[in-house]
Amino acid sequence: MKKISLLGATGSIGIQTLDVIAAHPEEFKLVAMSFGSNYKSGSEIIKKFKPQFVAVKDKETYDHLKQELSGESVKIGYGQEALIEAAVFDGVEILVNAVVGSVGLIPTLKAIENKITIALANKETLVTAGHLVTEHAKKYNVDILPVDSEHSAIFQCLQGENVKSIERLIVTASGGSFRDKKREELVDVTVEQALNHPNWSMGAKITIDSATMMNKGLEVIEAHWLFNMPYEKIDVLLHKESIIHSLVEFHDRSIIAQLGSPDMRVPIQYALTYPERLSLPEVKGLELWEVGKLHFEKADFNRFRCLQFAFDSGKIGGTMPTVLNAANEEAVAAFLKGSIKFLQIEEFIERAMDKHVCIAQPGLEQIQEVDQRTRKFVQTLIS
Amino acid sequence: MKKISLLGATGSIGIQTLDVIAAHPEEFKLVAMSFGSNYKSGSEIIKKFKPQFVAVKDKETYDHLKQELSGESVKIGYGQEALIEAAVFDGVEILVNAVVGSVGLIPTLKAIENKITIALANKETLVTAGHLVTEHAKKYNVDILPVDSEHSAIFQCLQGENVKSIERLIVTASGGSFRDKKREELVDVTVEQALNHPNWSMGAKITIDSATMMNKGLEVIEAHWLFNMPYEKIDVLLHKESIIHSLVEFHDRSIIAQLGSPDMRVPIQYALTYPERLSLPEVKGLELWEVGKLHFEKADFNRFRCLQFAFDSGKIGGTMPTVLNAANEEAVAAFLKGSIKFLQIEEFIERAMDKHVCIAQPGLEQIQEVDQRTRKFVQTLIS
Repeated sequence: MKKISLLGATGSIGIQTLDVIAAHPEEFKLVAMSFGSNYKSGSEIIKKFKPQFVAVKDKETYDHLKQELSGESVKIGYGQEALIEAAVFDGVEILVNAVVGSVGLIPTLKAIENKITIALANKETLVTAGHLVTEHAKKYNVDILPVDSEHSAIFQCLQGENVKSIERLIVTASGGSFRDKKREELVDVTVEQALNHPNWSMGAKITIDSATMMNKGLEVIEAHWLFNMPYEKIDVLLHKESIIHSLVEFHDRSIIAQLGSPDMRVPIQYALTYPERLSLPEVKGLELWEVGKLHFEKADFNRFRCLQFAFDSGKIGGTMPTVLNAANEEAVAAFLKGSIKFLQIEEFIERAMDKHVCIAQPGLEQIQEVDQRTRKFVQTLIS
Repeated sequence: MKKISLLGATGSIGIQTLDVIAAHPEEFKLVAMSFGSNYKSGSEIIKKFKPQFVAVKDKETYDHLKQELSGESVKIGYGQEALIEAAVFDGVEILVNAVVGSVGLIPTLKAIENKITIALANKETLVTAGHLVTEHAKKYNVDILPVDSEHSAIFQCLQGENVKSIERLIVTASGGSFRDKKREELVDVTVEQALNHPNWSMGAKITIDSATMMNKGLEVIEAHWLFNMPYEKIDVLLHKESIIHSLVEFHDRSIIAQLGSPDMRVPIQYALTYPERLSLPEVKGLELWEVGKLHFEKADFNRFRCLQFAFDSGKIGGTMPTVLNAANEEAVAAFLKGSIKFLQIEEFIERAMDKHVCIAQPGLEQIQEVDQRTRKFVQTLIS
C-alpha cells in the first residue's frame, strides 16, 4: 500500500489521480492533500478518501472546512506552511504535485529532503527552478517521475535503455485549438475558440498554452531538466491526433514511442506504480485500425512563436525561463479575462524577455524576485 | 570484441550482418561462416573478413573453394557437420543464424548447448521446432535474440518491462505486393508482380510470403515462441508504410512501439550489441514529418487466408506448424518456377493441413519426417 500526498486535488490532474487511487484501493492510500478555491469538490474528496491531513489556501476556507468536518478526525491547515506539511506528511511515499503555479516549488524541495518520490505535474517547478530541483533530487537520491503525458511517454521509452544512447527526444504536439489557422487568422480569435481543444480536456490556462504552443515550450524546458538533455537534442513534432505521446530516437536510428488514447490516467498511474504497471480497464484501449491515420508535420517556429521563445529562454538559462513563464501566466490570465488579444500573449512575453537582464544560476529568492518583477511589468503593459 | 559466427552469409540478412560487422571492426569479428550456392559472393566475403572457418553446402563447392583459397589459412568444411562446426566454432559468442529452411535447426540447438547466444533470422527454427528450441534455451540459460524487424521491435519495446504486464503483442504487416488488390484480382498475378515488394528489399521466398501474408503468419508463430505469448494475445495490424515495426500493449493501456526507416541493419545490429546500442550513422534517420502520414487497417483473415492458417496451425500446435511451413515452402518454390498459380499456394497449404493428423509434442525426428512427408504430398499436388 503506497501512501500518497496529493497537492492540487480538485484540479484536472488531481481529480484523475483520485480516480486512479479509487480504482486500486488495495494499492494506494491518500494520506494528505491540498486544494485551492474549489471548496465543494475539496470537501467531497475529503469525505470520500478520508485523508489524515488537508491543506487549504487561506484562513477563511480553513474555518469553513473546520466547521463542516467537525465530526471527522482529519487535521486541517492553511497557507504555505500547511502545503509543505501536506507534502511531507508522516509516511508519505509519493508526492503528486499537481498544483498550478510557482507555489508548488517549496513543497517539492521539502519532499525531496524527506526522501519522498515526486510525481510531478507542476510545470513551474522545473521551468523556473529546474537546476535547483534536479540538483536537490540528485543530492537526496530521489526520483522525479513525470506525470505529463509527453514526459511520461519519454520516461517509458527510456526504460531498459542506456541514456548515453539517446540521439534526441521528440516531443509531440497536437497544435492546440488553432493548429489549422494561419497567423493572420489569429488576430481576432476569442477566448471561447481558444478554449476548444480538439483532443484533451484540461484546465483553462493549459488549454490556452496549447493554443499558443507555450505549453509545448514549457514541456521542452521540463524535458531538458527531467532527462538532462541539451536543447539541441529535443525536437517538437506536430501530431494532431495526440496518439503518439512522444518518442525517443537512439543513436542506432531506432525510435521508441509510447502511444495510447488521450487519457491522463495512464501516465498518472504509471508514476504511481513505476517501475511496475497496473491493470487500468477503465481506460479505452487504442486500436490503431480504428484511428486509421496518424498525421505528422514539422513544427513551424514562426507560426508558433512561443515555441521559439521557450527554446531561446531555455538555452539562455538562468532566470530567463522564469521570465518566460511569469510573463506567460500574466498574459494568459489577461487574455482569459478579455483584457488583451490572443497575439498579445506572445508580444508581452517577447517584451518581458527582451527587457530582462538574465541572472545565471539564480537562487530561490532571486527566482521569486524575478517572477514578481516580470508579472508587474506585464501588468503595466496590459493596463 | 564479440566473436561472431554467421550462417547464411551470402543471403540478404547475411550481407547486411556483414555490413554491420564491417562498420564496427573494433566491436565485432567474424570467426566462422557458412554459405550455400552463391560461390562468388561467398569467396569474396572470405577474402574480406578472413574468418577462421567456413562451411559450404557440398563437396564440389568445398573442392573449388579449397583450390581458390589454397594460400589462405582458413579452414573449410562441407555439409551438415561443417554447418554445426561453424555454429559452435572455438570462441564464438554470437551465432547469427540466417540460413533459409529447416537446415538451421540443428546448428541452433548445438550452439545453445555450447552457451552461444543466438541471433535468430531463421524462421523455420522456431516455426517447426519452437518448443524444442525454447526449452533448450531455457535449460542452458541462453538468450535467443530476434533479428526480424518485427520481433526485434517487440523485443526492444519489452526492455525494462515486466512481461506479466503484457496485454498483447501487435505485429505490423505491410500487406506485401498485393495489399491493395482484392481476392478476385489475385487469380492471374505473375511472379514478377509478386516479387515487387513496396517497402523491403528481400529474398524471393520471403517476398512471396509477404504477398500471401504467410510471412506474417510465420512471424506470429515465432512471436508466440520468442515471447512465450498465447496466440490470443497476438494481433496483426496492417500498416503499409512499415515505419512502426511492431508494438506491445500493456495492461495499463499504454502501448510501446518501435519505429524506424525500413533498414534491416538496425535490428541486426541490436541483436549483436544487446542490451547496448551502437551508433549506426549509415542508416537514414526517420523524420515522421517527412513521412507525413501513417496508415493502419485491420488485417482481414478472409483476404489473407495464410494468416488464418498460421494462427490455426499455431493454436493446434504439435506438428501442424511444420506442415504449414513445409507446404508453404514447396508451394512458393513451385509458384516461383511458374508451375502453379498464386492462389494455389494457399490452396495447397490448406489441403496439406486438412490431411495431416497432428502429433503433439513431436521430437526432432518426427518433425523432420512430417516435414518430408508434407513436401512430397504438395509435390504430388503440383505435378
